[in-house]
Amino acid sequence: MLASALARAVAEARTGLAEGGIPIGAALVHDGRVLGTGRNRRVQLGSPTRHGETDCLENIGRLPASVYAASTMVTTLSPCDMCTGAILLYGIPRVVIGENRNFLGGEDYLRSRGVEVVVLDDAECVAMMGGFIRDQPTLWNEDIGVEA
Amino acid sequence: MLASALARAVAEARTGLAEGGIPIGAALVHDGRVLGTGRNRRVQLGSPTRHGETDCLENIGRLPASVYAASTMVTTLSPCDMCTGAILLYGIPRVVIGENRNFLGGEDYLRSRGVEVVVLDDAECVAMMGGFIRDQPTLWNEDIGVEA
Repeated sequence: MLASALARAVAEARTGLAEGGIPIGAALVHDGRVLGTGRNRRVQLGSPTRHGETDCLENIGRLPASVYAASTMVTTLSPCDMCTGAILLYGIPRVVIGENRNFLGGEDYLRSRGVEVVVLDDAECVAMMGGFIRDQPTLWNEDIGVEA
Repeated sequence: MLASALARAVAEARTGLAEGGIPIGAALVHDGRVLGTGRNRRVQLGSPTRHGETDCLENIGRLPASVYAASTMVTTLSPCDMCTGAILLYGIPRVVIGENRNFLGGEDYLRSRGVEVVVLDDAECVAMMGGFIRDQPTLWNEDIGVEA
């Protein structure tokens, strides 16, 4: 299940890349089923808040708290502070991360708040994100609140 | 300036209430000017991620990091974990909060990350939010990830 959810998140990231966007994707898994997926859409929607995880939550729409509380957020890249906060807001108890070599987000803070964090160190995720950061450093920096 | 920015945030919250939504509003101030405003639109857009602060950022759109780094986020209510994270992601150095009696969000975490936090304890904000929570407890709980 985890592998197929990561594959869905990676597919979203690849779609984003093909659209000229930042290749980060996410999937929310509940009870062995992917409830929905999302991708970073900063470029596509001119959006400062549609990251992979938040776009995933937004695409799914409103859910009862009990569903979030029994779900896993699967994401291709270590979650930024905003997405870390979204995971905490909804009490999502487990986060599975494709890789954190290219960016290390709020993993320690998630753990300190009781969230289980699993890092897969997936070679495909590392290569895709690393290639994008090399090709589009300005866009990448904007996405993490940094001005070159 | 601060008072007029809070008034803009309160006006957004009142608009939200009139729409049947959750009355929380926000305004981003830069260089003595309100760059934009937003309101919680969970009900209006079926959105789990459009809180006052995130809707404000989204309505403004993409900004250079240097603008965020010289801005103040003004919000009617203490920011939840997600909005706390959005403020941290963009390095917004100051948050002005209408009230934190009805909900205490990530203020300590913001301070621990170097953000200046000012709480106004504004009577109008307290009354508006308190009234909403009494009238619509289920909707309010959903907004903070709690199931009754």
